[in-house]
Amino acid sequence: MKKAQNRRSFLALGAATAASCTKPVATSESGAHMRVYGERSPHETSARVIRELTASLGTGSSRTPLHEIYGTITPSALHYERHHSGVPAIDSATHELLLHGLVDKPIVLTMADIKRFPAFSRTYFLECGGNSVGDQQGTPMPTVQGSHGLLSCAEWTGVKLSLVLQGVGLQPEAKWMIAEGADAGRMARSVPIEKVLDDALLVYGQNGEALRPEQGYPLRLLLPGWEGNTSVKWLHRLHFAAEAAMSAKETANYTELGKDGKAQIFTFVMEARSVITRPSGGMKLPPGGGLHEITGFAWTGKGRIARVEVSTNGGATWADAEMQSPVLSLALVRFRFPWQWDGKEAVIQARCTDETGYLQPTHEELVAVRGRFSGYHYNAVRPWRVAVDGAVTVA
Amino acid sequence: MKKAQNRRSFLALGAATAASCTKPVATSESGAHMRVYGERSPHETSARVIRELTASLGTGSSRTPLHEIYGTITPSALHYERHHSGVPAIDSATHELLLHGLVDKPIVLTMADIKRFPAFSRTYFLECGGNSVGDQQGTPMPTVQGSHGLLSCAEWTGVKLSLVLQGVGLQPEAKWMIAEGADAGRMARSVPIEKVLDDALLVYGQNGEALRPEQGYPLRLLLPGWEGNTSVKWLHRLHFAAEAAMSAKETANYTELGKDGKAQIFTFVMEARSVITRPSGGMKLPPGGGLHEITGFAWTGKGRIARVEVSTNGGATWADAEMQSPVLSLALVRFRFPWQWDGKEAVIQARCTDETGYLQPTHEELVAVRGRFSGYHYNAVRPWRVAVDGAVTVA
Repeated sequence: MKKAQNRRSFLALGAATAASCTKPVATSESGAHMRVYGERSPHETSARVIRELTASLGTGSSRTPLHEIYGTITPSALHYERHHSGVPAIDSATHELLLHGLVDKPIVLTMADIKRFPAFSRTYFLECGGNSVGDQQGTPMPTVQGSHGLLSCAEWTGVKLSLVLQGVGLQPEAKWMIAEGADAGRMARSVPIEKVLDDALLVYGQNGEALRPEQGYPLRLLLPGWEGNTSVKWLHRLHFAAEAAMSAKETANYTELGKDGKAQIFTFVMEARSVITRPSGGMKLPPGGGLHEITGFAWTGKGRIARVEVSTNGGATWADAEMQSPVLSLALVRFRFPWQWDGKEAVIQARCTDETGYLQPTHEELVAVRGRFSGYHYNAVRPWRVAVDGAVTVA
Repeated sequence: MKKAQNRRSFLALGAATAASCTKPVATSESGAHMRVYGERSPHETSARVIRELTASLGTGSSRTPLHEIYGTITPSALHYERHHSGVPAIDSATHELLLHGLVDKPIVLTMADIKRFPAFSRTYFLECGGNSVGDQQGTPMPTVQGSHGLLSCAEWTGVKLSLVLQGVGLQPEAKWMIAEGADAGRMARSVPIEKVLDDALLVYGQNGEALRPEQGYPLRLLLPGWEGNTSVKWLHRLHFAAEAAMSAKETANYTELGKDGKAQIFTFVMEARSVITRPSGGMKLPPGGGLHEITGFAWTGKGRIARVEVSTNGGATWADAEMQSPVLSLALVRFRFPWQWDGKEAVIQARCTDETGYLQPTHEELVAVRGRFSGYHYNAVRPWRVAVDGAVTVA
């Protein structure tokens, strides 16, 4: 009953113009020709925000405009990126994957070979381990695209790596798989063999078509629920070994420096997290209050999201948000919550609980345990302040 | 056990090259810069097949390359199209929707008004009522793109029309809604009020971003499970009336001419259907037999697909195919089936059963009931013949 009233109240906002019953004006000219491969409207301008870190071509990040995304799928053209040596130009017709090391039968697979295996499609989120570094360190970015934009979600298609390995013959001593990309820096990560055999994929499809170049075309590793860096792009080598490689990206980066000055390494899983994407930092609501839909994403590397709650009074009270169905494991979950803003200053925030019962921590709770040095795997609640003039900022 | 053996056998195909343990050759040059809005690899060439019917600009169809699609999502750039007056160029900032007729309070909504309502996202298939006209009439197209390509699937975002109508006040005499597009031809369809109030959507998002121009930018009607033509694009007017409009596209077209020479009108629902997309007409398998994955789509306008079966011996016997999870209501379902081809001529085909118990008919069964005149809502089983030389053709 409350809900129905809320929904009806939206109408008062929407129905700004009472209509005369005249017909609307529209074009009388025949429209444009069709195109074999479409493009978006020239009136649409959603864009990734690019930050190139060094003089090295293409090294840096580009962030998904989460505040402008509809639903749960990230358009491939707006999927986040984090590159360490730019985007290599690879021809799938000549690309090869070498599997070697502690295996009975080392092999080289072409893309045609890989596509002959039974395929597997599933929707998974992908999040950079270094998403929101500034938040933990006390220098949060002012927008959700800046603070959370190294996060996306796609329907991925590929082959279960465990299936490919049946013919290669893993030796008992093979405890790690070192995955290496074909970019100039040969970006490499070590993966425990348990994850490899559990749900690791060799992925060549993204949202129905071939992977985009920025996502590793023609082949990437995909490790569901793990920090994005481990899902090695432009994958050309899988080396099975007794020990981890201790590569640059698992020692110099993607480690978590604790309060005691010691770093944890191999912290792979992205824990439960949620964020309000609308209204969010940098937006401006019409002042004076009114009914607004609060919406955003929740996700966890540990399976399913069980609950999303929203507070609109600085955390004093919380109420359940609606989760858009289907709620998929290891995928972004869209939540929605109707908010009757009274026009006064307010602090809004979301928090989620995953199926293991883990509750997303506040910033203070997280920092108390982990300190402020790291910034990797930061997953605390993000409050937004809505001022009397409607301006939304980091709270 | 059978399955495991089958899967292992794929490996023999895949592992064409035994590897030396040398490292693969890759680039040493820094890669390309990032882009704010990405594009696909220049090596990828999947394309819609366009058929413009007349001298009228943009009038005709473009078909999705179903044989090249991965997973269940159709990339927006490859979504099928059927236009009757081309693609109009519309600016969302000035576009308006008029709701009038048998309502208490006629209104005009801007796109900003519409986006203020609580949103709703869901994955739905869309199929043209005239998909596969030639199949019923005895002149099937040689490829699955030709015969079934007026079929796609996307995650749509918009507003439930029933919610918008709460504030407009439908009068009891309003039994039909006439939806009109802003294209030059003012394409219009009449929709029974029951469907309007059940699950009709005003849609502005497609696969995470704004609708593409070819899909009705900035606003289309979406009627889940119904023939695509009723999901009116470039929607600018909803007229509520006691009677249907009897518009050109519901009298001269999109009607079903039966054996007795009489036409059925308002046959909205797309019934259960499936098709093998790989291997399919126009492809060529390596001769001599071998293990192949048979894959394709199943879908129904009546809810969920309950079962997909595959026959590889001309329909003599059938076996269950695996359905990719999640199996969503009113969405494309991806099925997969391992096939050990013995190298002899074979006829392969899929059939599906929906949750109502309805079994997809054979061509002969369909024609016996409906005759050969129509071609609308044709949903029969599509057999493909695999010749000894591996060539795949219509059976």
